[in-house]
Amino acid sequence: MQTKVVLDESRIPTHWYNIVADLPTPPPPPLHPGTREPLTPDDLSAIFPMGLIAQEASAERWIEIPEPVREIYRLWRPSPLYRAHRLEKALGTPARIYYKYEGVSPVGSHKLNSSVPQAYYNMLEGRTRLTTETGAGQWGAALSLACQFFGMSCDVWQVQGSYDSKPYRRMQMETYGAHVAGSPSELTEAGRALRERFPGTAGSLGMAISEAVEAAVKDPNGSYSLGSVLNHVTLHQSIIGLEALAQLEEFGERLPDELYGCAGGGSNLAGISFPFLRENLAGRADTRVVACEPKAAPSLTEGEYRYDFGDTAGLTPLLKMYTLGADFVPAAVHAGGLRYHGMAPLVSHAYHEGLISAISVKQREAFEAGVIFARSEAIIPASESNHAIAGALRAAREATETGEERVILIGVSGSGQLDLPAYADFIAGTMIDS
Amino acid sequence: MQTKVVLDESRIPTHWYNIVADLPTPPPPPLHPGTREPLTPDDLSAIFPMGLIAQEASAERWIEIPEPVREIYRLWRPSPLYRAHRLEKALGTPARIYYKYEGVSPVGSHKLNSSVPQAYYNMLEGRTRLTTETGAGQWGAALSLACQFFGMSCDVWQVQGSYDSKPYRRMQMETYGAHVAGSPSELTEAGRALRERFPGTAGSLGMAISEAVEAAVKDPNGSYSLGSVLNHVTLHQSIIGLEALAQLEEFGERLPDELYGCAGGGSNLAGISFPFLRENLAGRADTRVVACEPKAAPSLTEGEYRYDFGDTAGLTPLLKMYTLGADFVPAAVHAGGLRYHGMAPLVSHAYHEGLISAISVKQREAFEAGVIFARSEAIIPASESNHAIAGALRAAREATETGEERVILIGVSGSGQLDLPAYADFIAGTMIDS
Repeated sequence: MQTKVVLDESRIPTHWYNIVADLPTPPPPPLHPGTREPLTPDDLSAIFPMGLIAQEASAERWIEIPEPVREIYRLWRPSPLYRAHRLEKALGTPARIYYKYEGVSPVGSHKLNSSVPQAYYNMLEGRTRLTTETGAGQWGAALSLACQFFGMSCDVWQVQGSYDSKPYRRMQMETYGAHVAGSPSELTEAGRALRERFPGTAGSLGMAISEAVEAAVKDPNGSYSLGSVLNHVTLHQSIIGLEALAQLEEFGERLPDELYGCAGGGSNLAGISFPFLRENLAGRADTRVVACEPKAAPSLTEGEYRYDFGDTAGLTPLLKMYTLGADFVPAAVHAGGLRYHGMAPLVSHAYHEGLISAISVKQREAFEAGVIFARSEAIIPASESNHAIAGALRAAREATETGEERVILIGVSGSGQLDLPAYADFIAGTMIDS
Repeated sequence: MQTKVVLDESRIPTHWYNIVADLPTPPPPPLHPGTREPLTPDDLSAIFPMGLIAQEASAERWIEIPEPVREIYRLWRPSPLYRAHRLEKALGTPARIYYKYEGVSPVGSHKLNSSVPQAYYNMLEGRTRLTTETGAGQWGAALSLACQFFGMSCDVWQVQGSYDSKPYRRMQMETYGAHVAGSPSELTEAGRALRERFPGTAGSLGMAISEAVEAAVKDPNGSYSLGSVLNHVTLHQSIIGLEALAQLEEFGERLPDELYGCAGGGSNLAGISFPFLRENLAGRADTRVVACEPKAAPSLTEGEYRYDFGDTAGLTPLLKMYTLGADFVPAAVHAGGLRYHGMAPLVSHAYHEGLISAISVKQREAFEAGVIFARSEAIIPASESNHAIAGALRAAREATETGEERVILIGVSGSGQLDLPAYADFIAGTMIDS
């Protein structure tokens, strides 16, 4: 009974997939915050290298993965695709459940898929320092390691609530050689202003982005690096879905009826689902893609589709996206990686066009699903991933009632080894149900 | 440039390898603590099932892995074998360095290789509860998960110092459904006596073993389960070395000149090295096997070879082993899994016969090696594994000086994701150098 498909490293995809080439309508462009005109590449060059700016604006379907990036991908890719035999049995469901597990990355999440090429393209253009923000700490850890690979320095602003409650993430970033500050900090003008405006705040991704962008703009050798939201990040993450397609074929399985991914900024959901949407758009499949949001930050299910800033201080371009408002501060749920006010423009556009659907999940339901998953499949999933698992469990239980042989694919974006206090909170019965 | 060999799950070995069949002289038998006569199977039946007792005494070369155990092994095995290209480059060494990485197991260490069959054989004989001790928490987590797989309950006595300093490990065990107590505890007679004898003690593996053995003896449905030291544990761990042999062949590499493994109770060192010792004993290779001990618990390099108890209270059989004395309490080094007074009888015997060699490593050297490894190979190794890496780095640096093209294999027994406070201690410069 086949449990997993782990492809040889020679089968790491050679190209990323860019869904822009296949969308029925073009996604609305980002706007300059001052002129409200569509952004030009020059507008972005203060904070991004041209290699990434080109990807951000590209409509090419396939973009080649540089060999030095593939060489680093070989450290953990292809990630395994599992058939969840034990979970199916625990649920008594006739559904066939598969999960693509990104937690095998050395930092424990899918984020390394984008931090490596981001550091690489910056290095090519002579940048020696990257700045970024991090929520749960997964993106910060991923960028810290990527900078280490290319001999660059790395400054991370970690959302203060996460900085306090997730000390292991900070230690992980420092082990990889990064400098880490809680945000909002005293180190930037934006941080100082935010501390004055929101005294004692636990911070937010929007605030931390403001600080990291400011630090990059002020350093001629520095660039800013974003772990989600932007087109080039969703592009890099497409490697997840591309591998999953090949692995389902190795399993001898049909294309899934349903695909569940957690969605905060949107990079994981886009990464696993866009290659499957391509199959839908080409008429080869009819996979229902479901974005699983936290009820505490429900941008798709309760937000507005409009131009908004990516950060709190209003330093970024205006992005057309589902948003709860740039100064929205979500409840302090454990899934720090999903606590974002907006949603990737490409995911937002696909949702607006009816190509994907969305649900929201409260955190107790998410962790109940995570514990069932851990006790059957052995892997303790990341807090974020639990939202996707919860969505899939709803579907699997429906299948139990109807007797349908549904094929369900879950994107498990990371490992929960560093989220164990959240599990302890759930098991102790003290978890708030936001 | 090939980075790793990850074999398909169909290539998980079908049999464990028992080195007893190939040793030039038979290992001295365990003795009954009362009579000082060799133990009979009956003597052990109060705490172990017959399936494991048979393995403990077996001289068969190959012992079949039951299919239900192999099915669970498929969740993470075969574990990858890596060529450490980036580490070699960082060291400027002409040595070719490989490492077998057990941290991909869902609990993050090699311990699951033995906890799964141990729970399985107990379940077969109707035992419904397992008791055990844990130092760093790796074994406790592995047994917690294994019990969950077979519907058994699990009680873990975690060395108090580790219980206090490694809360994530306790949370991990509880997520898998186990009950965890700090040791020495008030729950057992042995624990209460030890608390009186050593007030305020941070505990030791020897003390925790006394408590777990007592609890098993008193429960007719209970068994005791040990994560290292015993023959059946080293047998189960042989899967590591068997896979590594096949993977080196896939790399087109010759058998290694040197093999480094960390050694506490000896299960990881035995697991990776015994299949290579078989090649030595058959005259097909001349691999130098090096046990890497912590200087804080140097049983092989500074202990005596004699019969001694496995635990502090004197409840276990007498084992012929290198020992620092059953009431030795090691310094509070971070590598909790290596803080044991004795060494597996089979490893001790092989060392006494000159089949393997040993070195000791202080913890600053170990963590310096760990940080170099993390920053080049991306994986943050377990505190224990850092001792093996330190040993290998000594050899690789020698090779740099002499220009020798040595082939070095390292057993990286686990992930350091839950050991990050130890890395933070090292990076802050506050680590004691025991």
